[in-house]
Amino acid sequence: MSLRKGGNCVTIPVVAIVGQSGSGKTTLICGVLPILKAHGYRVATIKHDVHGFELDTPGKDTWKHAHAGADIVVISSREKFALLERVVEELTLDQVIARITNVDLILVEGYKHNDKPKIEVFRASVHAAPLCSFQQDLLAIVSDVMPTLGVPVFSLDDYEGVVSLLEEKIVKLEEK
Amino acid sequence: MSLRKGGNCVTIPVVAIVGQSGSGKTTLICGVLPILKAHGYRVATIKHDVHGFELDTPGKDTWKHAHAGADIVVISSREKFALLERVVEELTLDQVIARITNVDLILVEGYKHNDKPKIEVFRASVHAAPLCSFQQDLLAIVSDVMPTLGVPVFSLDDYEGVVSLLEEKIVKLEEK
Repeated sequence: MSLRKGGNCVTIPVVAIVGQSGSGKTTLICGVLPILKAHGYRVATIKHDVHGFELDTPGKDTWKHAHAGADIVVISSREKFALLERVVEELTLDQVIARITNVDLILVEGYKHNDKPKIEVFRASVHAAPLCSFQQDLLAIVSDVMPTLGVPVFSLDDYEGVVSLLEEKIVKLEEK
Repeated sequence: MSLRKGGNCVTIPVVAIVGQSGSGKTTLICGVLPILKAHGYRVATIKHDVHGFELDTPGKDTWKHAHAGADIVVISSREKFALLERVVEELTLDQVIARITNVDLILVEGYKHNDKPKIEVFRASVHAAPLCSFQQDLLAIVSDVMPTLGVPVFSLDDYEGVVSLLEEKIVKLEEK
């Protein structure tokens, strides 16, 4: 296996996990992450938030800094680093991706309308039809049924299968 | 006034706010931030955490990603961007600073032993002596007394005075 372990001089492969609300995107991401880690990869995830998130806790020093007007608040410890930034305009997915370095793979959750290679989670027990059937950049479907869309189909808990597909993206970049 | 408003092509000026625990570092930072913002600057703050912080909330998707093994978790919305990273070794202050772009000034809280220009908050009612009296890189003391250390002394609530000093650092860089 040819690993790029943490390199940042070449483009990092990006795969978007898409699907309708409640289809199981987070479950899939959390299923493949431990396997990717066991295989030695460094992985970043990007979550698109449409509701407005609050990570910090009122009263903490970082919260105080942000509420006093800091545009960027960073906190760093032995185990973790965090950067919180107020933006005037939402960053595009490519702008978000550009902030990430030193990983082998980026998994994106929740940007439906992006131009990245995609894996759709489609749960026929919840939704009538998949989102991506018309899209060129669909790598695979992860589903509780076997739709015939001309792409590989994995069952909802076939995390090993999905990881094989993801690894192919990493290795392909490596071989360039 | 010569503003660099958000440029990132030159070194961003860094000033560390130091002082013993309970001296009022966060209060000073939160006092100067609104004035700096009113003067049109973009400001970042860096907080050194020695206890181990937890920003995310158990059960949220970002928390799930991190706990499933993601090395970096990013969340982005219309108003905010956040990047949470697990580190094997604590980042140095210079490594933390290198992650920040697009601001006019970086205020650092809590890295006592750094080589940056410093402002010490010294509260004689709480501590016997200031930390920095021996240091070359001391720009000023903010205090409830008037120690004679060969640097300007500002009273604890003289945020305007401290901002004038900080602005001098920004403009000085601008003139280089």
